[in-house]
Amino acid sequence: MRSTILSRRDLSFMLYEWLDAEALTRRARFEDHNRETFDAALDTAERLATDLFANHNKKADANEPHVVDGKVQIIPEVKTALEAFSLAGLMAAGQDYERGGMQLPVVVEKALAAYFTAANVSTSAYTFLTMSNANTLLKCATPAQIETYVNPMLAGRFFGTMCLSEPQAGSSLSDITTRAVPDGESQYRITGNKMWISAGEHELAENIVHLVLAKIPGEDGKLIPGVKGISLFIVPKYLVNDDGSLGARNDISLAGLNHKMGNRGTTNCLLNFGENGGAIGYLVGEPHHGLANMFHMMNEARIGVGLGAAVLGYTGYLHALEYARNRPQGRHPAQKDAAQPQLPIIQHTDVRRMLLAQKAYVEGGLSLVLYSARLVDEQNTAETPEAREHAGRLLDFLTPITKSWPSQWCVEANSLAIQVHGGYGYTREYNVEQFYRDNRLNAIHEGTHGIHGLDLLGRKVSLQDGALFRAFGAELRKTIRKVRGSVGAPDAVGPGLATISVELLAHADALEQAWQGVEEVTQKLYAVGDLNKTLANASIYLEAVGHVVVAWIWLQQALLAAASLASGDTDFYRGKLQACLYFFQWELPKVGPQLELLASIDTTTLDMQDAWF
Amino acid sequence: MRSTILSRRDLSFMLYEWLDAEALTRRARFEDHNRETFDAALDTAERLATDLFANHNKKADANEPHVVDGKVQIIPEVKTALEAFSLAGLMAAGQDYERGGMQLPVVVEKALAAYFTAANVSTSAYTFLTMSNANTLLKCATPAQIETYVNPMLAGRFFGTMCLSEPQAGSSLSDITTRAVPDGESQYRITGNKMWISAGEHELAENIVHLVLAKIPGEDGKLIPGVKGISLFIVPKYLVNDDGSLGARNDISLAGLNHKMGNRGTTNCLLNFGENGGAIGYLVGEPHHGLANMFHMMNEARIGVGLGAAVLGYTGYLHALEYARNRPQGRHPAQKDAAQPQLPIIQHTDVRRMLLAQKAYVEGGLSLVLYSARLVDEQNTAETPEAREHAGRLLDFLTPITKSWPSQWCVEANSLAIQVHGGYGYTREYNVEQFYRDNRLNAIHEGTHGIHGLDLLGRKVSLQDGALFRAFGAELRKTIRKVRGSVGAPDAVGPGLATISVELLAHADALEQAWQGVEEVTQKLYAVGDLNKTLANASIYLEAVGHVVVAWIWLQQALLAAASLASGDTDFYRGKLQACLYFFQWELPKVGPQLELLASIDTTTLDMQDAWF
Repeated sequence: MRSTILSRRDLSFMLYEWLDAEALTRRARFEDHNRETFDAALDTAERLATDLFANHNKKADANEPHVVDGKVQIIPEVKTALEAFSLAGLMAAGQDYERGGMQLPVVVEKALAAYFTAANVSTSAYTFLTMSNANTLLKCATPAQIETYVNPMLAGRFFGTMCLSEPQAGSSLSDITTRAVPDGESQYRITGNKMWISAGEHELAENIVHLVLAKIPGEDGKLIPGVKGISLFIVPKYLVNDDGSLGARNDISLAGLNHKMGNRGTTNCLLNFGENGGAIGYLVGEPHHGLANMFHMMNEARIGVGLGAAVLGYTGYLHALEYARNRPQGRHPAQKDAAQPQLPIIQHTDVRRMLLAQKAYVEGGLSLVLYSARLVDEQNTAETPEAREHAGRLLDFLTPITKSWPSQWCVEANSLAIQVHGGYGYTREYNVEQFYRDNRLNAIHEGTHGIHGLDLLGRKVSLQDGALFRAFGAELRKTIRKVRGSVGAPDAVGPGLATISVELLAHADALEQAWQGVEEVTQKLYAVGDLNKTLANASIYLEAVGHVVVAWIWLQQALLAAASLASGDTDFYRGKLQACLYFFQWELPKVGPQLELLASIDTTTLDMQDAWF
Repeated sequence: MRSTILSRRDLSFMLYEWLDAEALTRRARFEDHNRETFDAALDTAERLATDLFANHNKKADANEPHVVDGKVQIIPEVKTALEAFSLAGLMAAGQDYERGGMQLPVVVEKALAAYFTAANVSTSAYTFLTMSNANTLLKCATPAQIETYVNPMLAGRFFGTMCLSEPQAGSSLSDITTRAVPDGESQYRITGNKMWISAGEHELAENIVHLVLAKIPGEDGKLIPGVKGISLFIVPKYLVNDDGSLGARNDISLAGLNHKMGNRGTTNCLLNFGENGGAIGYLVGEPHHGLANMFHMMNEARIGVGLGAAVLGYTGYLHALEYARNRPQGRHPAQKDAAQPQLPIIQHTDVRRMLLAQKAYVEGGLSLVLYSARLVDEQNTAETPEAREHAGRLLDFLTPITKSWPSQWCVEANSLAIQVHGGYGYTREYNVEQFYRDNRLNAIHEGTHGIHGLDLLGRKVSLQDGALFRAFGAELRKTIRKVRGSVGAPDAVGPGLATISVELLAHADALEQAWQGVEEVTQKLYAVGDLNKTLANASIYLEAVGHVVVAWIWLQQALLAAASLASGDTDFYRGKLQACLYFFQWELPKVGPQLELLASIDTTTLDMQDAWF
């Protein structure tokens, strides 16, 4: 019985054959590790995800958190799962040994997270929010703050949140109006309303550590407009005494729960801070530098969102695959004999199309996320400053794509998983409709699709005078050269694989042409000289570049697969090659019209007037 | 306050300015009608839909039908709405006067249906199933059967269903195993299990008239394989006495309710026929001709599905538009002053892109459906046999597209409506997430997307030696000629509209090129000589032709709009022109890579092996 959560075979391919995670064990931080320790962690994750997370995914969807006597009620399986997660040390999987961590590389940590998220995105959200919160504080909090708040989070005793949005300020964070007024030397009083706070209130942990963005008023009592006035605060649900014991409840009240289409198992709250005089908060880092500090968390969260989108797509794909292999229905078009038994639907070309598209999207999406995670490891531990800087540039360039591409295409995969199931897939008696609902959130939170288009085209592309953009282009061209070098030598791809060589060379040409198109379009857009026109179609730019990036990833994997065909496990590698072929035949060509549209500096949407709607 | 159900202005444009519904009033059947009577019916529909259908759309979603003591419980608002619908005579809106009908044209009937479906797809489903059932019986039932079953349905006393699918036979109807064994001279005994029966059991009407597909066993007791063995039966929930009063309950039992992602207000049942000796059924039409008879209902239902998809997209668009006009958030990219107030999000180009895309999809989709409905009127009432035949060919050719295109692109519109709302749109406190869930069904029922690809490419294109395909091509070329003729004369499009003339001429060229592409690809696909290869990528063919068809519709409407600009209501017509421009700049170019893929006789999906997944 194959797992329908994730494919361990594929995960191993990504981690070891493609991303060479073992190479990291030659670095000081990871020297105690080897493939066996990584695999042991993956075994644990797979087991816990299967037994304690996947088991209540549907139940949590059908039984949303609700408030009774002021307390949020959550089905008990959630707490059981989270306790087991903490007990296994997973809350600190990537942290230093001295903090009780395992010092696992980020790429392995994300592979562990992949299991939990695919199994139950709602329950695992509590862990990832806590881990992101802890990571943020580790970057900019004082040792005392770390002692008081981070260590209990890494032990799973406290959970964390990120409180950014407000009812009037979602995408536009500069417009937050939550105030933080100094109250003595060491603390502030926080007042304001925070919206969309995941894990904002519950009884799952002893305490909740809210990371809150707020503005410290100037001497005139006014808030500084824009992002520059924003500072970052720790605002705990319960105050913490000097000895670490819990004190009084802070002035934070639950003003309401949001009821979402999916992700129903995660409490999502409207929190009012300071209804009774001001919640006590502690400044983190320098005043007015809150957004920069929070961005560390946001970048991590963005990779997390991409991961969630990819693996929800992935598990949907595996469910569809299992269904397609077992559901008999219909016959081939040329089969006229109705007395013959019906075929498993995987035998129908259109069903194979839908499965192959899903495979291309979800394996492509997960690969993109793990590649980004691998870049974080490079950024943190590569041997030279140049290598670390290069990795950082690639990571920054790719982050909007890593967040957005899976959020678009792996929802499409979930839609196709429903379609493969037919009417059954549309019912809650099966699993795939929930994945579709859960996944639809990902194009919205942690920066909408449109915001990431602006981030990519308006910021990342031009940052450091284009150095990020060029860094990625250099990597892409390296792959193209590698393909041309490798498949020029027939025995590098194994005997009898001439067709595959021809395919890979054609892919390399197509990829080169597409990237040249991106380069030209980018220049043209910046030559316009009117920012509103340059950025008008930034979402399409994001989508086009995203498809080129994933095509590049598929080409890397196909090259590897071709070289590995002779080593056994032929079916697996043939699958990789066919998915790559699908991506280059069916998907990459979609970029052509997008680049043409962008190159024409199309102003159709810019010119549209409100009154014309 | 504008309606967020539908735009009456746009509906009037479609009906009167574009489809010339008034021309129908010159035909005998509709001679009592005029624009005023049509408008009066639309007024009634808008009022009832607003007051009695939209009012409980969310409530019905949150309170699904459930079984108590063997009876299906449904919130009372549903019955109230349906009684008002029947009382207004709408169940028989298109029927003959002698049956208590209004003899409205089908195109007007569908415009009425548009209101009810947009307001509440689940409640309106009861009406459309009943009306389709009645229409089917009117084509092939005996006068006595019509008297007994149809008249009460048209009065709203009985409701109808269509019982086709079985657990092992959904897309593959030929595999049904429900048996109908003769029981005396006038009746049969039906045994079998029927799946996905919408409105299959409830207390909303006095009786339920099930139209059931079943097979009459041969003398050896065996069922004839394939579709040829299928016959059509009336199987009422309660037997009807000769005087029209209700008799005993028939042998039909509710085996379970399906719980769907959307469309939750419509009961959807697994029905077991004949658990206690056989349900009594009455043959409709000739034995073994059941599928042909049922196809009348299915074709009507397919237009209905396209309508539902289009108007769910439409109402989502109007909700998003209202939200975008009223939600302040962010500033323009070039606006650096954070102290300036936030803009309504409709001022952001990316939000306008999402609204314009929705407008292009939903107005395009609804237009396609109403055009098909208008063809039904032509097929029924055009003055010459040639005109009726021509309309029939167009209708048959377009039906798979009319069903599938809105089911694909108006769900995309619903997704964009969520995206415009941001996090709010993802919650059940707002309306748009329900539309998205409701609409996702439409690519599945009444023939999946893939089935309609096969219907278009495998059947409609080659039917009558290609006459349907040529009939449509001729219509499309007529529009191109009309554009070239009209905009050649500048005053035909009003003064000062040179830019629009250039645009329209460019659209005509693009449309011509796209259709030539379709013609060439069609020939190539049929020249392959291997049906499995010809049909391998039929879904993409369906999507490509669909986009060309909708581009053609947009060009017709833009031509009209250009000619009407000078007549006032400029904003409305500018909107049409801009949506057309959007479609030709952003959408039609997507067809290019699809046609290239098809022309290359791509076998990527055909070659994919089960073991490689």
